[in-house]
Amino acid sequence: MIASDTICAPATAPGGAIAVIRISGPDALSAASSVCSSITATTTANTTHFARIKDGDEIIDEAMVSVFRAPHSYTGEDSVEISCHGSRYIINKVLELLVGHGCRMARPGEFTQRAYLNGKMDLSQAEAVADLIASTNRASHQMAMSQLRGHFSSELASLRDQLLHLTTLLELELDFSDHEELEFADRTELIRIAQKIDNHITNLARSFEMGQALKLGIPVTIVGKTNVGKSTLLNQLLHEDRAIVSDIHGTTRDTIEDTIDIRGVQFRIIDTAGLRQTTDEIEQIGIERTHQAIEKARIVLWLFDQEPTTEESHSMQSLCKGKSLIIIRNKTDLFPTTGQTIADISISAKHGTNIQALEDIILQSIDLSTLNDSDFIVTNTRHYEALNNAHAHLARVLDALATQLPADLIAEDLRLVLSTLGEITGGTITSQETLNNIFSNFCVGK
Amino acid sequence: MIASDTICAPATAPGGAIAVIRISGPDALSAASSVCSSITATTTANTTHFARIKDGDEIIDEAMVSVFRAPHSYTGEDSVEISCHGSRYIINKVLELLVGHGCRMARPGEFTQRAYLNGKMDLSQAEAVADLIASTNRASHQMAMSQLRGHFSSELASLRDQLLHLTTLLELELDFSDHEELEFADRTELIRIAQKIDNHITNLARSFEMGQALKLGIPVTIVGKTNVGKSTLLNQLLHEDRAIVSDIHGTTRDTIEDTIDIRGVQFRIIDTAGLRQTTDEIEQIGIERTHQAIEKARIVLWLFDQEPTTEESHSMQSLCKGKSLIIIRNKTDLFPTTGQTIADISISAKHGTNIQALEDIILQSIDLSTLNDSDFIVTNTRHYEALNNAHAHLARVLDALATQLPADLIAEDLRLVLSTLGEITGGTITSQETLNNIFSNFCVGK
Repeated sequence: MIASDTICAPATAPGGAIAVIRISGPDALSAASSVCSSITATTTANTTHFARIKDGDEIIDEAMVSVFRAPHSYTGEDSVEISCHGSRYIINKVLELLVGHGCRMARPGEFTQRAYLNGKMDLSQAEAVADLIASTNRASHQMAMSQLRGHFSSELASLRDQLLHLTTLLELELDFSDHEELEFADRTELIRIAQKIDNHITNLARSFEMGQALKLGIPVTIVGKTNVGKSTLLNQLLHEDRAIVSDIHGTTRDTIEDTIDIRGVQFRIIDTAGLRQTTDEIEQIGIERTHQAIEKARIVLWLFDQEPTTEESHSMQSLCKGKSLIIIRNKTDLFPTTGQTIADISISAKHGTNIQALEDIILQSIDLSTLNDSDFIVTNTRHYEALNNAHAHLARVLDALATQLPADLIAEDLRLVLSTLGEITGGTITSQETLNNIFSNFCVGK
Repeated sequence: MIASDTICAPATAPGGAIAVIRISGPDALSAASSVCSSITATTTANTTHFARIKDGDEIIDEAMVSVFRAPHSYTGEDSVEISCHGSRYIINKVLELLVGHGCRMARPGEFTQRAYLNGKMDLSQAEAVADLIASTNRASHQMAMSQLRGHFSSELASLRDQLLHLTTLLELELDFSDHEELEFADRTELIRIAQKIDNHITNLARSFEMGQALKLGIPVTIVGKTNVGKSTLLNQLLHEDRAIVSDIHGTTRDTIEDTIDIRGVQFRIIDTAGLRQTTDEIEQIGIERTHQAIEKARIVLWLFDQEPTTEESHSMQSLCKGKSLIIIRNKTDLFPTTGQTIADISISAKHGTNIQALEDIILQSIDLSTLNDSDFIVTNTRHYEALNNAHAHLARVLDALATQLPADLIAEDLRLVLSTLGEITGGTITSQETLNNIFSNFCVGK
């Protein structure tokens, strides 16, 4: 699996003041020394040097060059990083010179793929690198960083230990049954252990929905009758004039969507057409979309200015079953609260009154405790599928244990659970194609 | 002029696998050590370290950090470069932490401005840094690199020496006239020296036109009657289908413009409407634009398929006076050359025949010798204006020498020449505002 060729690629986006070009592989130093003055095959590791980049007699650039040596580098191979001026011409020329000295242009994610192949990190950590680079808010950053730092890997290692323990117990039973032809032992304890492992796997798989929501933004839908100020509220939450606001009923016909960041967590706020009976065909479609938007939401903000009837309230509660429903009384400036209200909070969207308190309620309505305690949140579809498959195999194990099937049959399914979980950290992936697929979603230079 | 505060900024464009954040100033190391583990106030210069970036207990990133110490850094100050993952969240967080530890966000070009103020480079070299980053082809890169490496500065130093020599000779005359009340000496020699300096200045100023052309692309206009294959030729030169091609006369009504790179030199190729009498009003405007495009061109490609009349030939020659006119016979596949032709080259645009030979002729038609010998090409408008002003002052000196004005009056104008030239390298610029203006065109982080 160890790479024999040397790869190069720009690691920075085009258009900056400086650009970083990465080289990794057995010939990294010799390629760099052919291109950069002051770099030789014996340059000390972890040092940075001023160097001229030359193409024959022509000076291409004056650059800073850092040298790393195997195994103490990102890839685990000899590596060089050239910090040159961010000119398109210079970047292309440096890469051209490196390729002329035997380097090959790296595929997307190939540096991280090599780090994985050289045992610098497991596969789930390697995937966290891509998530980390893509992170735009505190929550998605924290999930990626936790995965990169091996928290998921430890959970999986603990699951693996428990599974191996279960296997040992089964093998013990197998030995007994072989030699002494005893009845099958009492399996209550085995079932208890398997059940515990399955709970753990199921919890991890279940965290995926929250992981996806946090990664893409938690969907929040604003609903309410026409003209209660839904678009005004959207603009307040977004801190900009995104939606057209007017006093005419039915102004918003399409759903409008945008993301906001409340204390580091990303939400996708969806404004909808007002709920009313209408003969306007386009608006009718808008109302259907509202129902769809409620479907997709985790949180529903129900806005009104006149206290709803008990019937309306029941109807909304039933529409929002399984979701967090936040009931909001708007226009407190026009209609001051008169004691009785079913609202969780009263605001004036127009004057921005109580908006921050509303943000707090939105934030509290999602359970972020999982982000802070030791439980890990799964964000990767590949991991989610592996967990689901492991659960399916484990369900067969549990069935088999309950129906007193022989230990050797059960052991086979247990091996499948182990190998399926092993796919997450990569230990049981043997196909080069599968690996290439996983890394092909990375950006070039990482 | 020495900066007392510490600045920070991202030096790379957003969106890459990694991002580089620069810190420079007296507190660079202490700020970096507050943010990055493994960096301390005593970290050795020119070393690179793996570090965790932490906000309290929260790990923001794992990064590579390089340390440079005054005066051996780009800015001449203590500096630190943090190579972190290119996530928007991480970049903002690192900058936020640095600002929290007393750094200030850098203005555009402020790192290079500090390099200038600390005597690491003169002003024309500092400006070359921005040109180098913007360079997209070999010619513009070479001009910027030559300026960065101080070739222009040496030319100016040599001019300065000659001007000081002239001043000395004048002062000598002044001493004589004071003490011995002699007639003014023979000034032929002084005039000869001043003339030589002025020639040098004028040549530099004159190179600006070529410098601009090379920087922006040398304008090449394609002209010819309708339907002789102008758009097909454009597409051939661009190696793509940029212009709409049809057999209908007058297909191209607007002028189409795009750039190509011939052996490292950038050309701006302009396709025009065909030349013919027309009653179509829109097309008439197109033909006027053709005349304008010839005006703007340095090189005109005249395309025909039927041998032009002597009259047409004369008319084209007179339209293209002062420009390089390349006469091209197209459609050699349909009308094989029958001996007599006024063309410089015969091609088939449709089949791509002889296109490379045409590119060679285009390249030869500009005088690139100046790019290769010691003469410097001026590319900066500010430098061009300073050269023109110096020339104007020197013209006054020459006048005064010829009309036997007293030496002390002449010396005053000579000082103006010196100070005007000094603005180019910055020595005679004292206004902070002027400096800030010059650097405000830089990108952030440089």
